Amino acid sequence: MTVDRYPMWESLGIDLERNDEFLGMLGVVYPEVYLSQPNRPKGMAYFDGATFDIHGAPIQEMLDEKKKTDAQIVGTFCIYVPDEVILALGGIPVGLCGGSSYSFPDADKTLPRNICPLIRSYVGFKMGKLSPFFECCDFLVGETTCDAKKKTWEILDEVQPTYVMELPQRKGEIDRQLWRDEIVNFIKKTEDTSGKRLTVEALKEGIQRVNGKRKALKRLYETRKALPPPISGKDALLISQLAFYDQIDRFTEKVNAVCDELEARVKKGDGVIGKDAPRLFISGTPQVIPNWKVHHIVESSGGVVVGEETCTGIRYFNDLVDESPATLDGLIDALVDRYLSINCSCFTPNDMRIDQVIQWAKEYRADGVIYYVLQFCHAYNVEYVKMERALKEAGIPVLKIESDYGDEDTGQIKTRIEAFMEQISQ
Amino acid sequence: MTVDRYPMWESLGIDLERNDEFLGMLGVVYPEVYLSQPNRPKGMAYFDGATFDIHGAPIQEMLDEKKKTDAQIVGTFCIYVPDEVILALGGIPVGLCGGSSYSFPDADKTLPRNICPLIRSYVGFKMGKLSPFFECCDFLVGETTCDAKKKTWEILDEVQPTYVMELPQRKGEIDRQLWRDEIVNFIKKTEDTSGKRLTVEALKEGIQRVNGKRKALKRLYETRKALPPPISGKDALLISQLAFYDQIDRFTEKVNAVCDELEARVKKGDGVIGKDAPRLFISGTPQVIPNWKVHHIVESSGGVVVGEETCTGIRYFNDLVDESPATLDGLIDALVDRYLSINCSCFTPNDMRIDQVIQWAKEYRADGVIYYVLQFCHAYNVEYVKMERALKEAGIPVLKIESDYGDEDTGQIKTRIEAFMEQISQ
Repeated sequence: MTVDRYPMWESLGIDLERNDEFLGMLGVVYPEVYLSQPNRPKGMAYFDGATFDIHGAPIQEMLDEKKKTDAQIVGTFCIYVPDEVILALGGIPVGLCGGSSYSFPDADKTLPRNICPLIRSYVGFKMGKLSPFFECCDFLVGETTCDAKKKTWEILDEVQPTYVMELPQRKGEIDRQLWRDEIVNFIKKTEDTSGKRLTVEALKEGIQRVNGKRKALKRLYETRKALPPPISGKDALLISQLAFYDQIDRFTEKVNAVCDELEARVKKGDGVIGKDAPRLFISGTPQVIPNWKVHHIVESSGGVVVGEETCTGIRYFNDLVDESPATLDGLIDALVDRYLSINCSCFTPNDMRIDQVIQWAKEYRADGVIYYVLQFCHAYNVEYVKMERALKEAGIPVLKIESDYGDEDTGQIKTRIEAFMEQISQ
Repeated sequence: MTVDRYPMWESLGIDLERNDEFLGMLGVVYPEVYLSQPNRPKGMAYFDGATFDIHGAPIQEMLDEKKKTDAQIVGTFCIYVPDEVILALGGIPVGLCGGSSYSFPDADKTLPRNICPLIRSYVGFKMGKLSPFFECCDFLVGETTCDAKKKTWEILDEVQPTYVMELPQRKGEIDRQLWRDEIVNFIKKTEDTSGKRLTVEALKEGIQRVNGKRKALKRLYETRKALPPPISGKDALLISQLAFYDQIDRFTEKVNAVCDELEARVKKGDGVIGKDAPRLFISGTPQVIPNWKVHHIVESSGGVVVGEETCTGIRYFNDLVDESPATLDGLIDALVDRYLSINCSCFTPNDMRIDQVIQWAKEYRADGVIYYVLQFCHAYNVEYVKMERALKEAGIPVLKIESDYGDEDTGQIKTRIEAFMEQISQ
């Protein structure tokens, strides 16, 4: 690290000693998991740097932007929260989900232990003052996507202002109305806290910027369909993960730069692994930095992950917002429609998700699907019943992995994934 | 059993051997837990009989009624589903939540094991053809109250028609509109399946009958506030539990008959336990027959349960529907308002529930509160964080018990409850 980040962290009230410890652990794990990979795209250097300095440059940039333009920094936890609105009102959206068990003890002082590790992680990062991302946010935006999150906002709100968006549970006409109301209310909230008023031009620009990011990620994922894939699953996952933290326009540019390189590789038939390597498609719950567990197991066992139907994967970028409406009302409708087209297991029924997974598993030429469930996530866990049947009917082998952020089950998962890969390679 | 129920069970396709086994277990447990209690109200004889014959008389009565009047039998799983509508359209509502681990293996063939035991139990009863209640239902009504239930309806619907009501997650104006829509849609659904049309008179009568039942239960619980209480917690719980299975008008009459007896006891100062016995108030998740675990532990350790803020307790009967509106629209509004006044942890925020628990704990002269959470119920589990703090601030001791339907933790829970009672008696 060439820049002294301590004064910044100190000004945010971060627990410096433990932040050092956390970053120190990341500094050991990351080279092991990432830098040891063969034939990495050159463009990954940027993302390596961004990860090493994850609590540094992105925070400093946001604080600088805030100082310069009075931008509000808004923390979010779900891909249903419309970043477009935050950007259009001069703000900076940043994802705050937690991917590390490092902060569990801090969460466990308040919350029960038998809840989703993603929630336990971010609550711990907040409670332990371990995350500069949390500490530079003006307010947080929660949503009602699952039971544990829904109830956790009430507790987070006591330590940091937390605005809640109500996501409906079905996709009928009344649900669309409710969700439209929620987006309009969120616009009002963001207008009030920013002191700005939303204009057609600003919203359109916000939409274009986010669409640009999503298009770059789509382009990235498109290259993964190639045989052999020109990028490892771990590297692609890292890029998707950084989409939630990095400055949007530079991120889009850097992803496109990697895509140029990857498309050239595809043309030459240059891959990161042999053509015969088992290709796995991940479907399920999000994987947040530094949760690279399943990808690392697959790719250190001779397989390759070719796509993720998760919130940190295709679900995040698949749908674009229609940029054509000329009025605020029209653009808001476009936002409503785009966000309601995401298929999360929090909706019932949610059969479109099953259709999509089958379609994508085929498009990505997957030999099998790993259904990944964060422990205690009832919605994705129960939805597996229908998903498993549908995949098997479609002739696609599937393996369910339920796990948290600990290392205790790594050996067992490795054994199961190796056996699965052996089975689907026959 | 004086009547041969086997032909009826056989006609419903029940697994006769396992039904015998289940009822045999109940026949051993019930006398131990219930009949051994001293000084029971005479009126409990009716409820003892109803429990012993739980898979017999109630089923035969419903089938007879169906034959006679073409009544549709509608299975429900949540106190937000308006029984008034089912009754008004000539139907019979019946509660199907499961309270026994007997059916877990049947559920485990389909569902993950780490979900709420109540869901696991009822899914097992259905999948194993173990419940004549399920098998005589024309259709089931699910709701979107929690993640695991929400996703389970999709699976149940494959084996028995399951209609789903969307409960909103907040109580604002748009949520009220959504819930009103849902009640109107449920009326349409019930009209369609019954071939009847809802009239003002019929809905008013349905409301009056359910109000009558709720008033009787309120009267019952009122007597429990006395020092000493004239009825054990176990007996009062059993009555509340039977409210979901028994013929409504007879049930109301029998509850009122017990209340006559209990009110006479209260006048005389006659109780089921000494005045010094620790009085405990239960708050949390539902307790369904034969889940008498916590009550039995408390009451075989020298304490008494004086009230339950649960779906099988005060939450079920506290609010009445306004009977005065003269139009269907007015009566529907009254239903909407009544049901949205229930405070379940599936709403956010839900601070009214906390206020109610404090108020009720005081009214019922509780020495302490046992916060009861069915395992894996994130909403009630996380809501405890705020509840615990509020109770402590109000000077009310509280103990959290998280449990499923197994016996493995009985000893540990007994030790904790005994220590808690000792502490609050000092």
